[in-house]
Amino acid sequence: MTVQCDTLIEAGWCLPVDRDNSVLKDHAIAIQDGRLIDLLPVAEARQKYDPGALIRRESHVVLPGFVNVHCHAAMTLFRGFGDDLPLESWLRDRIWPAEGRWVSAEMVRDGTRHAIAEMLRGGVTCFSDQYFFPEIVADTAADMAIRAVVATPVIDFETAWAKNGAECLSKAADLVHDAYADHPLITTAFAPHSTDVVSDETFQALRVLADQLDRGIQIHLHETSVEVDNALRSTGMRPFERLNKLGLVNASLLAVHGVHLSPEEHAAMAEKNVSLAHCPRSNQKLASGVAPIAEIKAAGVNVGLGTDGAASNNVLDMLGELRSAALLAKATTLDAEAMDARQTLRMATLDGARALGLDDETGSLAVGKWADIACIDLDRLHSQPVYDPASQVVYTCEREQVTDVWVAGRHVLDQGRLTGCDEAGIIRRSREWQARIAGSNSIPDT
Amino acid sequence: MTVQCDTLIEAGWCLPVDRDNSVLKDHAIAIQDGRLIDLLPVAEARQKYDPGALIRRESHVVLPGFVNVHCHAAMTLFRGFGDDLPLESWLRDRIWPAEGRWVSAEMVRDGTRHAIAEMLRGGVTCFSDQYFFPEIVADTAADMAIRAVVATPVIDFETAWAKNGAECLSKAADLVHDAYADHPLITTAFAPHSTDVVSDETFQALRVLADQLDRGIQIHLHETSVEVDNALRSTGMRPFERLNKLGLVNASLLAVHGVHLSPEEHAAMAEKNVSLAHCPRSNQKLASGVAPIAEIKAAGVNVGLGTDGAASNNVLDMLGELRSAALLAKATTLDAEAMDARQTLRMATLDGARALGLDDETGSLAVGKWADIACIDLDRLHSQPVYDPASQVVYTCEREQVTDVWVAGRHVLDQGRLTGCDEAGIIRRSREWQARIAGSNSIPDT
Repeated sequence: MTVQCDTLIEAGWCLPVDRDNSVLKDHAIAIQDGRLIDLLPVAEARQKYDPGALIRRESHVVLPGFVNVHCHAAMTLFRGFGDDLPLESWLRDRIWPAEGRWVSAEMVRDGTRHAIAEMLRGGVTCFSDQYFFPEIVADTAADMAIRAVVATPVIDFETAWAKNGAECLSKAADLVHDAYADHPLITTAFAPHSTDVVSDETFQALRVLADQLDRGIQIHLHETSVEVDNALRSTGMRPFERLNKLGLVNASLLAVHGVHLSPEEHAAMAEKNVSLAHCPRSNQKLASGVAPIAEIKAAGVNVGLGTDGAASNNVLDMLGELRSAALLAKATTLDAEAMDARQTLRMATLDGARALGLDDETGSLAVGKWADIACIDLDRLHSQPVYDPASQVVYTCEREQVTDVWVAGRHVLDQGRLTGCDEAGIIRRSREWQARIAGSNSIPDT
Repeated sequence: MTVQCDTLIEAGWCLPVDRDNSVLKDHAIAIQDGRLIDLLPVAEARQKYDPGALIRRESHVVLPGFVNVHCHAAMTLFRGFGDDLPLESWLRDRIWPAEGRWVSAEMVRDGTRHAIAEMLRGGVTCFSDQYFFPEIVADTAADMAIRAVVATPVIDFETAWAKNGAECLSKAADLVHDAYADHPLITTAFAPHSTDVVSDETFQALRVLADQLDRGIQIHLHETSVEVDNALRSTGMRPFERLNKLGLVNASLLAVHGVHLSPEEHAAMAEKNVSLAHCPRSNQKLASGVAPIAEIKAAGVNVGLGTDGAASNNVLDMLGELRSAALLAKATTLDAEAMDARQTLRMATLDGARALGLDDETGSLAVGKWADIACIDLDRLHSQPVYDPASQVVYTCEREQVTDVWVAGRHVLDQGRLTGCDEAGIIRRSREWQARIAGSNSIPDT
C-alpha cells in the first residue's frame, strides 16, 4: 500500500547538510503540507509514495535553499549606482542622497519585488532584510512566497519612514503585533543601523522591547576600521564594547560584517552565542577588508552568509558568495583546507538559519522541517565531469543552473520559470526607477 | 550607395576598450574578411552598409572577446579532482599521479575540446595554453576556431610527451616550423614549467631557441612562498633572480602568477617589459596568496588575466576572474577605487593581448584588428537596472549571458548555441574519462 504525498522530488544527488555532510546518490524527497516528510533512495520512494506531483531531476543536486542572512532588498534599484567608491563616500555622496530623494513605500515595494525575484532564481529560500518601510517588505515577501526575517530599522535621525528612534520602535512593535505575529513565512526582528546613528537611550528602549517581544537584533558592526576609530574618538569605546555595556551582546544578536573585530571580541561572541553575518563580496567591493571567518569560526562563533544589498555587491547571488567565502578564506589564511566545500555549504544554509533563529524550521533537508529546497543542474560544460557534487556546487555553479526552488513546499521556481511573479514587468518597473534616479546623477562615460 | 560587408552587429552598448574607455550607445560593428572594418552609430551603419548577416542585439553589450592569458586546457578532465588541498599536496598527491597515469594524446584532445567549448561559451576568444602534446592543443584550437597561443612545455624530467628538456625543445621547434608557422589563429610559445624543474643548461638552450624563432616564454614564477624558499635553499637565488642571470628576463617573458614578487622585482619587470599573468581564483583556491596587482600595475607592469586550469579553479570563467580581480584588489589595498570596472575590463582584453604579443591583432574593437567579439545580454533580473554597462559587466554578469561570440569574424557562439562542436558529445566523453580517472581514486562521501 502506498502513502499519499503532495510532491516527490527525485534527484541525481542530494546534499541534505546533515551532521555527516552526507552526499546521497539517487535520493528522493517527499513533501506533505509544506514540510519534508521523508528522504530516501529513489527505488524505495517509488514503492512507498503516491505523489500528487512527481519531479525528476536526474542531472541535478538538491540541497536546502540558501539562507541569505543580510540584505537590503529594495536597494536593488541602486544596483551599480556609485561603483568603485569607498564605503564612506559611497554612503555620503551617492546612496544617502539618493535615498533621501527616492525612498518611499512604492520604491520599497518595487525594489523588494525585484530583489526577491532575483534571489528565488538563485536558490535563496530565506532572506533577512533591513530597510525602511519594513511592513512593505513583509507584505511583498509574503505575497511572493519567500521566507523572510524582516528587521525594522532603528535610527535616531529622521528618514522617509520615521521621525526618530522612538517612532522606529513604535512602528516596529506594531509590525510584530500586527499581521506577522504568527506567519508561516515571515518573522520579524530589529535592525539598529549601526552604533553611530543610535543613542544609548534608544538602545536601552530597544533592549527592553526586544526582550518583551522575544525578537532578534541585527546591526552593522565593525564593518570598517573607520567606524571603529570614529566610535573610539566619540565614545571612548569600540562599538562592540558599547553594545556589551548596553546589555545587547547575547544570543539574540546578529553582528553583521564584523570585519574588524579582535580575537577577544570573537571569544566574547562565542561565549555569548552571538552569530556573525559574513558578506564577503560587499566587504571587498567597499574595501572594508576581509572578515577572518576561519579564525572566527575556530573561536566557536556561528557564521551565516549574506549578500548585503545590490548597491554594494552588486548581485544577490548566494552561489557567488559561497565561492567568494571559500576562496577568500583560503587566500587570507594561506591554508587551502580552510572553508572547504562542505563547511561553506553549511554556512550558506543551516548555519545561516541558526543565525536567524530558524534552524529548527529550515536550513537543512530534515524530516519535519519546512520543504525549503533548491535544485541545481550540473549538466553544463563548466560543471562537468563530476567527481564530487558538493565541490561542484561551491566551485563551479552559477545561478542559471538553479532550475527549481520550493519554499514551504510551494514550487516557486519551476524549470527556470518564476511561478509567482511577472519577471518582465518587474524589470520594466526597475528601468522606470533607474531613469528617474539617474536623471540628475548620470554616470560619466569615461 | 551602400558598402558590402560580411556581418553587421548592432548592439545596445559597445565597450571597445579604446584609449578613452568609451561607452558607446547604439553602435554597430562592421566585419569583412574576419576583420573589424568599422565601428559607428547604428543609424549611420544602416545607411552605409549592406551586410551579408545583420545581427541585432538591443539589450546587449558588445566588447572585445576575453583573452585568457593562462590555461592548462586539458586539465578540465580533472575539474574538482582534489579540491581544498594546498598546491604542493594537490600537485604531488593528486594531479601528478593522475597525470602520470592518464595523460595521452587522446586525453589532451578530449580535455582541450571540453575547455575550448567552455571558454567560447563564456566569451573567451583567445587563450594561452601550457600542456603536454601541444601539437594536439594547436590542432584542436584551430579545428574549433578559437585563437590560441600554444606554449610547449619544457621540463627536464620524463613525461608522457617527452623524455627530457632536450626532447621538449626539439619537439617545440618542430611545432613552430610545422603547421603553425603562419596561421591566422594559432601562435606558439615556450613554457618552461617552473624554475625547479628546468636546469640552467635547458634554460640556456631555450633562450637561444626562443631568440632564433622569435617566440615568447611563459613560466610559473613565484606562485607560492614555498617555491621561492625552496629555490633559495637549493640555488641560493630567488627564481626571478636566476631567470635574470640566465638572460630570460626581457619583453618576451610572461611571468605567470607572481604572487610573491618583491617591489624590486616589480620594478625590474616594468623596466624589462615583462608582463604578468594574474590568476586570482587559482591563487586563492590553492592558498598561494593574492598577487598585489594594484601595486604591480602602479609599478608599470602590464598585467593580463588568466583562469589557470580547471583542476585548480575550477572553471574557465573570465567573467568570474574579472569580478574576483576587482574585488580582491579593493579588499587587499583597502581602496575601493583600486581596479575599477574599466581597468579590469582592459586587463581581461587588451592588456592580456599585449601580454601575449597580440595587441596589434586583437584585444580591442579597433578598425583593422581581427573581429574577436563577445556579446553579453544585460536583460536579466540580476543585471538590471543599468546605470553603467561597464560596471554591469564586471560586477553582475555570468557566462550564460554571453549570447554570441565571433572569432576572426566567425560566429562561433550564436544565440547561446556553439556552432562548431557537439556539446553533448563533449560532456559524454568527459564523463567516460571521469569514470576511468575516479576508478581507483573516488572521493569519499563525507
